[in-house]
Amino acid sequence: MKVNFNTDKEFDIIAIGRACIDLNAVEYNRPMEETMTFSKYVGGSPANIAIGSAKLGLKAGFIGKLADDQHGRFIEKYMREAGIDTTNFVVDQEGHKTGLAFTEIKSPEECSILMYRQDVADLYLTPAEVNEDYIKRSKVLLISGTALSKSPSREAVIKAVSLAKKNDIKVIFELDYRPYSWENQEETAVYYSLVAEQSDVVIGTRDEYDALENRTTEGKNEDTVNYLFMHSPELVVIKHGVEGSYAYTKSGKTFRGKAYKTKVLKTFGAGDSYASAFLFALISGKDIETALKYGSASASIVVSKHSSSEAMPTVEEIEALIDKNETISV
Amino acid sequence: MKVNFNTDKEFDIIAIGRACIDLNAVEYNRPMEETMTFSKYVGGSPANIAIGSAKLGLKAGFIGKLADDQHGRFIEKYMREAGIDTTNFVVDQEGHKTGLAFTEIKSPEECSILMYRQDVADLYLTPAEVNEDYIKRSKVLLISGTALSKSPSREAVIKAVSLAKKNDIKVIFELDYRPYSWENQEETAVYYSLVAEQSDVVIGTRDEYDALENRTTEGKNEDTVNYLFMHSPELVVIKHGVEGSYAYTKSGKTFRGKAYKTKVLKTFGAGDSYASAFLFALISGKDIETALKYGSASASIVVSKHSSSEAMPTVEEIEALIDKNETISV
Amino acid sequence: MKVNFNTDKEFDIIAIGRACIDLNAVEYNRPMEETMTFSKYVGGSPANIAIGSAKLGLKAGFIGKLADDQHGRFIEKYMREAGIDTTNFVVDQEGHKTGLAFTEIKSPEECSILMYRQDVADLYLTPAEVNEDYIKRSKVLLISGTALSKSPSREAVIKAVSLAKKNDIKVIFELDYRPYSWENQEETAVYYSLVAEQSDVVIGTRDEYDALENRTTEGKNEDTVNYLFMHSPELVVIKHGVEGSYAYTKSGKTFRGKAYKTKVLKTFGAGDSYASAFLFALISGKDIETALKYGSASASIVVSKHSSSEAMPTVEEIEALIDKNETISV
Amino acid sequence: MKVNFNTDKEFDIIAIGRACIDLNAVEYNRPMEETMTFSKYVGGSPANIAIGSAKLGLKAGFIGKLADDQHGRFIEKYMREAGIDTTNFVVDQEGHKTGLAFTEIKSPEECSILMYRQDVADLYLTPAEVNEDYIKRSKVLLISGTALSKSPSREAVIKAVSLAKKNDIKVIFELDYRPYSWENQEETAVYYSLVAEQSDVVIGTRDEYDALENRTTEGKNEDTVNYLFMHSPELVVIKHGVEGSYAYTKSGKTFRGKAYKTKVLKTFGAGDSYASAFLFALISGKDIETALKYGSASASIVVSKHSSSEAMPTVEEIEALIDKNETISV
Repeated sequence: MKVNFNTDKEFDIIAIGRACIDLNAVEYNRPMEETMTFSKYVGGSPANIAIGSAKLGLKAGFIGKLADDQHGRFIEKYMREAGIDTTNFVVDQEGHKTGLAFTEIKSPEECSILMYRQDVADLYLTPAEVNEDYIKRSKVLLISGTALSKSPSREAVIKAVSLAKKNDIKVIFELDYRPYSWENQEETAVYYSLVAEQSDVVIGTRDEYDALENRTTEGKNEDTVNYLFMHSPELVVIKHGVEGSYAYTKSGKTFRGKAYKTKVLKTFGAGDSYASAFLFALISGKDIETALKYGSASASIVVSKHSSSEAMPTVEEIEALIDKNETISV
Repeated sequence: MKVNFNTDKEFDIIAIGRACIDLNAVEYNRPMEETMTFSKYVGGSPANIAIGSAKLGLKAGFIGKLADDQHGRFIEKYMREAGIDTTNFVVDQEGHKTGLAFTEIKSPEECSILMYRQDVADLYLTPAEVNEDYIKRSKVLLISGTALSKSPSREAVIKAVSLAKKNDIKVIFELDYRPYSWENQEETAVYYSLVAEQSDVVIGTRDEYDALENRTTEGKNEDTVNYLFMHSPELVVIKHGVEGSYAYTKSGKTFRGKAYKTKVLKTFGAGDSYASAFLFALISGKDIETALKYGSASASIVVSKHSSSEAMPTVEEIEALIDKNETISV
Repeated sequence: MKVNFNTDKEFDIIAIGRACIDLNAVEYNRPMEETMTFSKYVGGSPANIAIGSAKLGLKAGFIGKLADDQHGRFIEKYMREAGIDTTNFVVDQEGHKTGLAFTEIKSPEECSILMYRQDVADLYLTPAEVNEDYIKRSKVLLISGTALSKSPSREAVIKAVSLAKKNDIKVIFELDYRPYSWENQEETAVYYSLVAEQSDVVIGTRDEYDALENRTTEGKNEDTVNYLFMHSPELVVIKHGVEGSYAYTKSGKTFRGKAYKTKVLKTFGAGDSYASAFLFALISGKDIETALKYGSASASIVVSKHSSSEAMPTVEEIEALIDKNETISV
Repeated sequence: MKVNFNTDKEFDIIAIGRACIDLNAVEYNRPMEETMTFSKYVGGSPANIAIGSAKLGLKAGFIGKLADDQHGRFIEKYMREAGIDTTNFVVDQEGHKTGLAFTEIKSPEECSILMYRQDVADLYLTPAEVNEDYIKRSKVLLISGTALSKSPSREAVIKAVSLAKKNDIKVIFELDYRPYSWENQEETAVYYSLVAEQSDVVIGTRDEYDALENRTTEGKNEDTVNYLFMHSPELVVIKHGVEGSYAYTKSGKTFRGKAYKTKVLKTFGAGDSYASAFLFALISGKDIETALKYGSASASIVVSKHSSSEAMPTVEEIEALIDKNETISV
C-alpha cells in the first residue's frame, strides 16, 4: 500500500522550522562537566530531516530564519552544500541568535541535551516570510512541531499549512515535541491537534501523541487514530522505541515495523533519521511496509554514530541493514 | 430561508471573550479633556451581545475571566442580574485588571475611544478553563475576534471552537477587529482565517473581512464568500454601515438589509446591538431577511442612546422601528 | 531653626515623577461596585505636591512624561492653569497610557484605591529627557519614591539627583512608597537608601522608612536618623499618622508636630498635602516647628474633602486651622 | 606611592559578577564558519580576574549566580580548584543558562566574540543573595561593570558597594563595558558614574571612561580625573592600549606604564589579566608604578596565548617579562 504524491513538482520535500547548531562532546562516556572540547554540526529536527532526505536523493528545500552571524552562515553553507535549496532562508535583522544544543553522552542509556533556545532566530520567522509560490513547487511540506511553540514562528507555520492545503500539497507533521519549548502542555495540545487535524501524514512517538491529546497517562493507538481519521490525516505513524513502530491508514490497514539491532552510542537523532528515510521511501513510491523498514534502519544507523546530521546514512547503508534482517524482538 | 439550530439545548447562546468596563462621558459633545465625569457600564463586544440577546429573551451564558477587584465583581453582578449564566466566569488570581474604554463623543461624526487593554484579565483565560460540558449545553458558541489577539485567551478560543465542532454546536464568529489589540495585520489574518474557516456563521464589516484576508485595499464580497464557502461557513454577513448589510448563504442566496433612520448620538455599540438582535431572530427561527431587519433596527436604536450595554433594545422597540419602515437609501 | 535655600533662583521647587488621573467615586460611603459615576482629577504624589505648593504661592515646575491622549493633555492644561511651569513635560511617543487611580470610600476608615499602573507613561521618562539647565533654575528638586520603581524613570531620577547635587540644588525626597509598583522590598530598599543617602531632606511615614531599611518589623526613629545623618541628609521628617510627626536635624534637634482635629471623609491625599504645606513653609523661611504645623493643618483639611489635588488648601485656610489649635492628643 | 589596605582580613579580594563559559576556536586564523571544534574555558571578566589573582597568590572569593546545569557545575569546580572560595556562588533555580562566548580569531588584528547573554544566570543574582558578613572578610570588593547592566544583578551590585563602604572595604571598579549588554549609553552612564563616584579605585580604557561620562567623542584624562576626585576615588587607572596606561592619584600624582612587546595571538583577556596583576601588586604592597608594570606584563603574556583564564601568568612569568624591559614606544 502506497501514498500518492503529485508527480510534477520540482521539490520532493520542503521543510519548515529550525536549523540550529549541535555541539557534540568530543570526549564522551563521561559527564559534560569533564568534556573539554565540542564539535560543531548542523542540528534541529527539520534541518536534520532535510539533510537526511537530501543525502538519500530527494530534492529538498527549506523555509527558516537564520541568525546574522557566523553560526547562521555556517548552517546555510552546510545545507546548501548538502544539496538543499536554501533560497528561502531569511536572515534575522534583530540580533537573535542561533539555537544551540550541547550533547552529553554519559553512556548509551544516559544521554542528555543542554539547550540554548532563548529568543532564537528560528522562532522569529514571520507569516510574511512564508512564500506561497515556493510551497507550491513541492510534493510535500514537512512541519516540525517545535516551530509551533512560539509566535511568530507559530503563525508562519499555520500559514504554511493553510497554503499547502489550498494548493493540494501534502502536509507531513513530525511532532518533534520538546516540552521545554512550550509554556505548558495545554497550549501544546491546542496547536498540535489543530495542525494534526489538517495534516495528511502524522509521525511521532506514543509520548508525543499523548501530548497532542493532552493526556497525562499513556493513550491507546486505536483511540488516537480513530480521532485523527475523523479529520484530514490518511496515514498515522506511531513509534514505540525498540518495540518498533506502527503505521495506520485511514482505509483501516495497520503495518508494523521492527527496530534493527545496532551498537547504540547515543539516542540523539533517531527520530530525525527515521523520518528522513521513511519519507524518502514513501515519496520514492515504495509501499508503507518498506518505508517503515527504511525508517527503522536509518534510525539504527544514526544512533550508532557521533552526530545527527553528518551521520545520516545512504540508501546503500540502509538497504544493507534491512537485508541483514536482524530485528529486535520485544 | 432559515438556519437550523439544535432544539434540545438549555442555552441559546454561550459567548466567550472579554467583559469590560465602559466609562462614558457624562458631559459630551466636547473633547474628553473637558469631560469631568464618567458613567460606568459593562462593555466589550461579547458581553454586550450576551446582554443584548438576554434582554431580547435568549438564554445566554458566558465564558470569560474577570479581575479580582471591584470592577470584576460589578461586571459579574450586572450580567447575572441581566439574566446571563455567569457560572463559567473565572476570577483571575494574578493581579490582572479589567479592560477599560473611556468614550469621547465630540459629535455624532467624531467619536473615539481611549482604551486600557494592557495585560487585562480577559486575555488570560486559559484553555484549561474552557469546559466542554458547558459548551455542549448551548445551541450556539459566539466567538469574538479580539479574544484571539493574545495568548492564552487565543488558545482558549481555539479550543472552544474545537469542542463546539466536536459536539455539533454552531460556531458564530463576530469578527470584532480592534487593530490596537494585535501585533500586526499578518497575525490577525492567520487567526481570523483559521477560525472563520471553522465557523458556521461569520459576521463583520467589510473592513473586518479585509483584515481577515490580509488586504490593504477593499475586497469584494463575492471573493470573500467564495473563499469562505469552500470551508465550514453556511452563512456570511457583511456590513457596509449606512449602506446596509448583506447576508450570503452557501446555497447561493443573497439578502440585503437596509439601515434605519435615527438621530445618531454616537457610533459605539452599533455592531454589538446588530449582532445580538440578528442572532436573536435567527435562533428564534425567523428567516434571514427578518434577522437582517432586527439587526439593523437594533443598531439604529443603540446609536441614538448614551451607552452600549444598558441601551440594548427590547423586542417591542425593535419591531416598532421595523414597522415604521424608514430606511436609509444610499 | 530654619533650613537655608539658595535665594537667587527662579523656581522654588521643581518636582519630578508621575502626574496621573484620579477617578473619585461621586457616590461614596459604599463599595465601588455600587458607584456608577466617577469624577476626574489630576493625581499622583509629585503632581499633587506641585499643585498644592503652587496654590500656596510657590513658583513650581515639573519634569515628567505624559501620554499622548486626552488624559495627558488634561493633566498638562490643569497644571499649567494652576500656575505650574509645564515646559519640561515630555509627551510619550510609544503609546503608553496615563496612570489611573479609582478611589473607593466605603467609610473614613475603609478607603482603597484600584490602580492602573501597567506600562504607564510616567515611568518611561528617560535620563536624556532630564535637563540640567532646568534643574539649575530651582531652589529645590522634589523626588517622589514611586518614580524609582521602574526603568527608565528610575535612571531619570538618579540622574536628576546627580545634577541637583552637582549644582548645589537641595534634594527633597518624599518616600511615597507604593508596594504594588515594585518587584520586591529588597529592590525598594536598594534604591530608597541610595537616593535618601544623597538627599538633603527626607519625608515619609514610619512604614516607609521601614521599607527603606528593608525591615519587616517597625524600626526606631533614632536608628533611622543615626543612619541617614551619616550621609547627606540634614533634616529627616518621620510621620506617625494621628500621633503627629517628628522632624530631626543633623545638628541634633527634634521637633514634634501634632495632628489637627478634623471630620475625616477619606485618607487619600494626606501625605501630599502635608508635604506641599511643609515645604512651602520651609522654603518661605519659616522655622521647622512652624513648617510641621503647616504640614499637619494642610493634611487635616484635605482628608475632610473629596479630592486630593483640587482640595489643596490656601495659606489662609491653613493658618485658620493652626490658630484654632485643636490638636489630637494620643 | 602605595594604596593602603586593611591588613587583618581573610580574603585579599572578593569579586562579584559573572562567571561564564568561553568556547575558543581550536582551529583559528580563519573565520568561525570554518572552525569545527571549540575548547571550553571559564570566562567572564570578574571570574578571570579572580582566577588570575588566585594564580598570583591572592586569596580570592566570589559572589555570583550559576546555572543549575553542567556548565554551571564546571565553572564552580574549576574556580574551586584554582583556589578561589566558591561558597558564595548561588545556584539559579529558574532555568537560566550560563553565558557563552564563542571566540573567533581571524588574525591578531581581527578578533571577535559571538555572545550568548540572553537571560543568563549571572544577571539574576539578587540583593538578598549578597552577604554582608562575607564582604566584611575581604580587603577589596571588585565590581565588574557588566553586572550593572540588568536587574536584579544591578541591585545586587549596588547593595554590595553600599555594604563595602559601610564596612570600610575598598571598592575597586573594573569598568568592563560591553555595549551589547545595555539598553543604551544613557543608562550605562547613569550607573557607571553612580558606582564610580562611590569606588576607591577605578580601572578602565579611555573608551570605557567615555561611556561613563556619556560622551560620543573622546574625553580628556584630566577632565575625567578632576570629576572623579571630587568623589570617593583615590586612584584612577586609564588604559590606552599599546600606548600604555596612566594611573592618577587624588594627591595629584600621575604614573605611566608602558606596554610590553609580545607576539599577539588575539586580543581577548588583555583587560582581565591586566587587572588581576595590577591588583595583585597593589594589594601585595607594591607601589603604583610597579603595579602598572605588572598589569602591562600580564596583559602581554595573555594576548600571546589561546585562552583567557587558563593562560593567566605566574609571578615568575610576569617578573621575567618586566626584567626583559622590552616596552613599546609610541
